[in-house]
This record gives sequence, C-alpha cells and structure tokens, in this order.
Amino acid sequence: MSSTSKIGRVGRRMALVLSALGLLTVAAQAQTDPLPSWNDGAAKRVIVAFVTDTTTAGRPGFVPHAERIATFDQDGTLWVEKPMYSQILYCLDRVPAVVKARPELANVEPFKTVMSGDREAIARLPLEDIEKILLATLSGMPVDEFVAEATKWLDTAKDPRWKRPYTDLTYLPMQELLRYLRANGYKTYIATGGGQDFVRVYAERVYGIPPEQVVGSAGATKYGYGKDGKPFLTKEPKLLLNDNDAGKPEGIHLMIGRRPVAAFGNSTGDREMLEYAWAGGGPRLSMLVLHDDAAREYAYGPAQGLPESRVGTFTQALHDEAGKNGWTVISMKNDWKRIFSFEP
Amino acid sequence: MSSTSKIGRVGRRMALVLSALGLLTVAAQAQTDPLPSWNDGAAKRVIVAFVTDTTTAGRPGFVPHAERIATFDQDGTLWVEKPMYSQILYCLDRVPAVVKARPELANVEPFKTVMSGDREAIARLPLEDIEKILLATLSGMPVDEFVAEATKWLDTAKDPRWKRPYTDLTYLPMQELLRYLRANGYKTYIATGGGQDFVRVYAERVYGIPPEQVVGSAGATKYGYGKDGKPFLTKEPKLLLNDNDAGKPEGIHLMIGRRPVAAFGNSTGDREMLEYAWAGGGPRLSMLVLHDDAAREYAYGPAQGLPESRVGTFTQALHDEAGKNGWTVISMKNDWKRIFSFEP
Repeated sequence: MSSTSKIGRVGRRMALVLSALGLLTVAAQAQTDPLPSWNDGAAKRVIVAFVTDTTTAGRPGFVPHAERIATFDQDGTLWVEKPMYSQILYCLDRVPAVVKARPELANVEPFKTVMSGDREAIARLPLEDIEKILLATLSGMPVDEFVAEATKWLDTAKDPRWKRPYTDLTYLPMQELLRYLRANGYKTYIATGGGQDFVRVYAERVYGIPPEQVVGSAGATKYGYGKDGKPFLTKEPKLLLNDNDAGKPEGIHLMIGRRPVAAFGNSTGDREMLEYAWAGGGPRLSMLVLHDDAAREYAYGPAQGLPESRVGTFTQALHDEAGKNGWTVISMKNDWKRIFSFEP
Repeated sequence: MSSTSKIGRVGRRMALVLSALGLLTVAAQAQTDPLPSWNDGAAKRVIVAFVTDTTTAGRPGFVPHAERIATFDQDGTLWVEKPMYSQILYCLDRVPAVVKARPELANVEPFKTVMSGDREAIARLPLEDIEKILLATLSGMPVDEFVAEATKWLDTAKDPRWKRPYTDLTYLPMQELLRYLRANGYKTYIATGGGQDFVRVYAERVYGIPPEQVVGSAGATKYGYGKDGKPFLTKEPKLLLNDNDAGKPEGIHLMIGRRPVAAFGNSTGDREMLEYAWAGGGPRLSMLVLHDDAAREYAYGPAQGLPESRVGTFTQALHDEAGKNGWTVISMKNDWKRIFSFEP
C-alpha cells in the first residue's frame, strides 16, 4: 500500500471519528447549562444572547477571535469587598512589620491608630490615611519578596464572617461567566482599582486569569543589582496608574490596547470602563452587579434605597445611566441561584 | 448496543487514529527545518537546544506552558533601524501638519530645521530635539485618529535603500524564530523603546504579535467625551514608560508581570532586559543580533571594530558582558542564510 493511500485511509477514518465526536459534543452542549448558578432571567438571557451573537460566524454582530476582550472589575464584582477591600486588610496587617523596620512611624498618624488596634478608629480613617498606609506597606521591597509575603498572608488570613480565606469568597456565578466567555474564545481580563501586583499573586489560581491579563493600580518599580550581582526589581512608592474611574479605560488602553467588547463592574469606579466598552459599536455587554442580598452576602448602594457604603458605591446616577444606556443590572438576590461554591 | 460501548468504540478508534497521526507528525517534523533561513552554526544550535530543553516534558529545564514568555526588542532586532528608526521618520513627516495646526512653531527649533528640509541638518538634531518632535507629533489627537494616520503613513512611506514599505524590512530569520517559539507554546512579546501605540498599529499583521503583547515607550491618555456624548481617549504629551535600558525590565514587569525565559536585542538599550531574563534560573536564552553585514544590510557597532552608530549601539562593554555571561551573539553575516523574505 502506498503511503498516500495510507494517509487517505487514516484521513477518512479520522473524518468519521471527528464527525461522531462532533455530534456527541453538540448533544452534550444542549444538555449542559454553562451558567448553572444563574436563575433563568433577563441577566442570564442577555449574556447568552451576547455570546451567541458575537461568536456565531455569519451573524452581523460576529466578533473575530482576536478582538474578543472582556474586562472585569474585581472587588464587589468577582468577589466580596465588605467589610473592607481585602488588600487594605493585608496592608493593615503589614503595618507592625513596617513600624518595626521604621520605628519613627510608631507615633505618626495613621500608623499610630493602626498600631493601637482600635478597630472602630481604624475603620474611620480617611482615604488620604489609607493611601499613606498603602504606599508604606506596598513599596520598598523587592518584587519577589512582596509576592512571597502576599502569598503567605492569603494562605492564612480569614474573612471574619465566613471564616474562610478571602480567595474562597469569589462569586460562583461570575466564575461560571469567566469560564463561559473563555470557552467561547474571549480573553478575560481583570481591571481593578486594587493593586496590580497584589491581584496577580492569586488571579491565575483563583480565576484562571494569568498575571499578564491583570490590569490594576500600579506602582513603579526600580531595576537594580543585589550584592551577588544579580538584577532585581524593587517596588517604588510612586503611582503609575490609578486604575479607577477614567483610569480604567486609560489603563485598559495602556495594557491591552484594544477596546473591550464586554465589561463588568459594580460601582461608580467602573462607570467609565462600562461606557468605553459600550461605545465601541456592534453588540456590546456592559453589566453591573447590585449587592441587594443581605442574607446571603451584603446589601448596599443608595440606588433602590439600599444603605450607603464606603466601598462599591452604586449611586442613583449610575443606576439611571445604566437604565438609559440599556446596561443590565445583575441582582444578586434574584439572578443568582448560588453565590459561593462552598454554600449550597 | 449501549451508548457507553458506542463511546468506548469511538474512543478506541480515535486513539488509533491519533497515534497514527502522531507518527505522521513526528515524521513531518523531522523533515521540516523550523529555521530554514539560519545557517547551521552555534546560534541556531543554541536556539533549538533551548526550545527542546524547555518544552520536553520530564527534562529538568522544562518550563510550564503558562510561563513561556519571550521578549524581543524591535528596532535592529526584528527589522532594520537604519538610517533612522522608522517611527522618527514618521514623526518628521508629521511635522508640516503640526506646524499648519500650530503656526507659532514654524520659527521655533527644532521645527524650523525640519521644515527647512535640510536633510543633513535634520540628521544632526540632538536627542532633546528629537524628543520634542516626538511629543509634538505623537500627542494631542484621539487614539483612533492616531491609528488612522500611522496606518496611512505605513501604507505609503518607503525606505530609501530598498524602495519598499518599512514593514517589508523585517528579518526573515527572526520571523522564523517568532513562529518556532510560538509553535512550541511561547507567548512572543515585543519590548521596544519605540512607541507602544505606533508598533501596535502593525505588529499583528507584520509579526503575528497582537497589541496586548506589545510593550513599548508609552504616553498617558486622557478619557473624555465628544460632542456626541461618546467617550474617547486623547493621547497626552506625558511619558508614562520609557521602555529603554532599565525601563525594559520595569516595563515588562508592569505589562506582563512575569520574567521572560528568552530575550532578544541588539544594543545597550536591551542590556538590562537580557540580564533580567538570564538571571531567572533554569535554561535561559539571551541573544544579541550583531549588524556585521554591510553588503546585505548594514555594519555598525564599535565591537569587533565596526563603525560607531547613533542608533543600536553595540558597545565593546556589551560584547564583553555577553561573552562573560554566555549570551549568544548572532552574526547577521554568518548565521543568516537570507535576511529579507523579498531577497533570495
């Protein structure tokens, strides 16, 4: 038998097998709901219609594979942001080590208040003081040392309400959405106001999002050489990118260079990112997570009469803009069957 | 027949077919040289050994798929950088339009010299003046307008020596190397001192490198709204990242967040990037392209007695460091069978 006819036979047999597998796959897909933790409602229907429209060849809204970019805020959108962003809790926990290394800070505010352990006073610290704490605790060390410390903290620190590591507190419906988008050729990015280096430590393990797809507030680093002559990078107390508000689309342009087709947030800090994605033409998805489930998670945001909150402010103005633009508001209470993977 | 045994039969048949295909693939690979434009020499051997070591499961130097990051300088490494970086030529060509919009610049240096058309005087402009020209011509317009203008220029401008678009002047051996690395699971990045937005305009078409994998010198953008209420980004005259020298590893950390396993450059501006990749532990590849072929391209760089050059300086110190570290210097003259795809 010539090798050509051998290849021909192999080819024909493979075609048979592949078409049989194809049928099996179609049958399996019809039975498998990609978003099982979502109730059947408007939010779920909008997501499925968007993915179908943008990934089915021949449809007017078809988006080429390379342009399928989806950006997600993190705090309050992918995981719990109450009672405080977990990165701020990390920085507060780091204060004693910083004060030990720089004892002159012990009597200087806001370090004095943090060292006092007075939880209520700490919770009342104004934003400027929080920023001072972030700068002091997130810079001055080699990048590798920072990664090691943040990893250790994430492995041991626990959320006071659920008594679990913070990385357990991601929303199962959003994890399903990330996987569903990726299964349909979307590159999923985090665009967070939190620290880029901090989120990169766990994003791959927790969300399946690699470091190079995490855009966040970012400080400068400085290249230098150790005593052994080996080069390393030191984290500097200089902010390069404040990835909040207008900083989100600006950061997305800097780091990705493409306009997202889909964007997800939960607060006024995400407004410009959602506008930017929405304005791109063709089918777009801009969605906001509304925290309206005090029993299973939290309820906050002045829209719909929910109590105001220091973090994740979902204002009436944002609610109005969402309504006017046709963005979809996800009700945690009504749209999500389950919230956490560890709860039924 | 039960459906389980049907699937079992399909699975067994598929396994047979796949193993037959596997054999065919191995046979095909043995016959196909992934780097046909490279002469058989040390440089080619080093590359093939590195790829084999880092991608063969079970070898001590095996690098997991997600960590396979390779960074390439562009000017002088992936394409011709003489007589001047093509982005500078683009900016010089943009000066008349800028002066038309801002007539007060007509009598101000360095714009006056550029408007005079005196090529020798333009070639002598100091770096500070070039920077002024870059800032004035690369900022102040919406991002979309910049992309349209750069695209138009790249479609029409021609290199004076080869009378071809600049995007034709990429090195065929390096294009083969990019494809070879990608075929083996490497994510290929450009890390250029040139403008990130400029290189992103053509990198996907020319190198198969998408915008999100181009790291370069980057200016700030500013989010705002047009008269129609639609948001857009304007390029600002503020440098966020100078992606040269120490700025290369710093920019790689900012934009990628992983240390490259392989890095490629051709000048002192790439030194820190090559050091950073090299210091990572395990098998590493740090390579420098030496321009020593005046007949087929150019010959410059004081190392090995080549003439000094304003761009792409390959100094004796860099040559010494390469030798000491065990980096491989690629001789364009000896290692490359062909240089351009349009030449035999």
